[in-house]
Amino acid sequence: MSTTQESYLIGLIGDGITASLTPPMHEAEAAAQGLHYLYRPVDLALIGRSGEDVGELMRAGRDLGFNAFNITHPCKQIVLEHLDEIPERAAALQAVNTVLIRDGKFIGENTDQSGFASALAAELPDAAKDKVVQLGTGGAGSAVAYALLDSGVQDLTLFDLDLDRAKERAAALAPHFPSARVGATDAAGLEPAVEQANGVVNCTPIGMHHHPGAPIDLELITAEHWVADVIYLPVDTPLVTRARELGCQVLDGGAMAVGQAVDAFRLITGVEPDRQRMRVHFLEMLADQQP
Amino acid sequence: MSTTQESYLIGLIGDGITASLTPPMHEAEAAAQGLHYLYRPVDLALIGRSGEDVGELMRAGRDLGFNAFNITHPCKQIVLEHLDEIPERAAALQAVNTVLIRDGKFIGENTDQSGFASALAAELPDAAKDKVVQLGTGGAGSAVAYALLDSGVQDLTLFDLDLDRAKERAAALAPHFPSARVGATDAAGLEPAVEQANGVVNCTPIGMHHHPGAPIDLELITAEHWVADVIYLPVDTPLVTRARELGCQVLDGGAMAVGQAVDAFRLITGVEPDRQRMRVHFLEMLADQQP
Repeated sequence: MSTTQESYLIGLIGDGITASLTPPMHEAEAAAQGLHYLYRPVDLALIGRSGEDVGELMRAGRDLGFNAFNITHPCKQIVLEHLDEIPERAAALQAVNTVLIRDGKFIGENTDQSGFASALAAELPDAAKDKVVQLGTGGAGSAVAYALLDSGVQDLTLFDLDLDRAKERAAALAPHFPSARVGATDAAGLEPAVEQANGVVNCTPIGMHHHPGAPIDLELITAEHWVADVIYLPVDTPLVTRARELGCQVLDGGAMAVGQAVDAFRLITGVEPDRQRMRVHFLEMLADQQP
Repeated sequence: MSTTQESYLIGLIGDGITASLTPPMHEAEAAAQGLHYLYRPVDLALIGRSGEDVGELMRAGRDLGFNAFNITHPCKQIVLEHLDEIPERAAALQAVNTVLIRDGKFIGENTDQSGFASALAAELPDAAKDKVVQLGTGGAGSAVAYALLDSGVQDLTLFDLDLDRAKERAAALAPHFPSARVGATDAAGLEPAVEQANGVVNCTPIGMHHHPGAPIDLELITAEHWVADVIYLPVDTPLVTRARELGCQVLDGGAMAVGQAVDAFRLITGVEPDRQRMRVHFLEMLADQQP
């Protein structure tokens, strides 16, 4: 019997993440792959720490044998100053959700971005990418906008109730994709943009259990659109439900949640996870959580 | 599929312990029991920390989701000031090798002591305990002396090249076992003590690969003695080999190494480990390490 079986110790650092489905998603996939893999939630609220402690927690974790961390709210930006290496796309987003510990160094990654892109490629491979409208430009929105452009979207229109934020995001992204057009619009410009778009992507919180409703007039959606939503509580938002009724191609919020975990798992282990198995497990866990 | 599978994260804090067999001993037994269990060595030499950092490492480990730590040289005493609870026997030894984290509290245990006692009970259940001579009164010796008295030894003679240390140990132990006699002897008194003893226990380093030889004139050992040794590198010390040749009942150093792990595993998980399976695995790993 070997004394040096390879094993993996991962943590998720964030506020209020005790019930996050990411740890069990990773652990179930690792078990299915026969890997020795333990994933601990590190809930800042529970341990009485602040987001500013993320660097100290990561360094302690390195000393105690952690292989990687996932990082979430409110630490995705704070973590940047504690990294030894950061690839271009994570640097462009100014946000990191995955930190690999290699030879004692902290290497940042952003699998929110890569996970959305890989989910889009895997589940909607034929989606037209000439023109896309994205609703919401917060943290998730930044990652998704980058992912859309990186996936080949030629014309991306960002809408946000805060027009200035949408404009800032557009201006920050544009230099990384010189052959694409990245613009921002207010409510007045939204309707014509959606009419001309191939795809509509929701990155606002509207449609969540606690923010019921739709982020856009659902009459604007037609069968010719493909529709994506990043919300997974619930997976079946009014936007997603309406799009399915119309027969649209749909990428629901589970796809991004699973996609970030798929990409993190591959980065951490070097083993290709089974995206479909992880999605099925994720949806089962969501169903178990329903009241 | 459950989202809350019980799992265990354990660390071993000590200096130069990267190759310790305790982590793989625990992990193999946990795997055999179907438990999700990860055990990380935290080698102070490797991470550039000192023994004084044990409290800081334990607190960080608590925040990061550890369930327990094993503690070894040079931290077994330093750790005392960081504990919330310490049972009487560990307090009497002034040494702790196991820290359980329960509801955020650190609870000390000493499974060097309990592990020797349980190994003695399991493997030499008939050993007479009227008179026992113990050689060596360092850290391991303190735990073993307590274990011997706790196991019912009526008359314990401690020998050490440092007679003052042997006397101090005897004086410290005596109040905890008022019905027993605990004494110390110098070299002159050793021979008559061994002649009258039922058992002889080695807690000196003599017999280790780097301290070859025997801790006592082997001519003094007879077939009527039972013999115990705490050394397991190698398991077959000259003392153990000679005792086996004579047909003595023998408790070799593997028994204590396995015993401390057996007791720690039970404390951490609440599950009864298979002592014999752990011993077989331990001896296999030792054999793999031989040059």
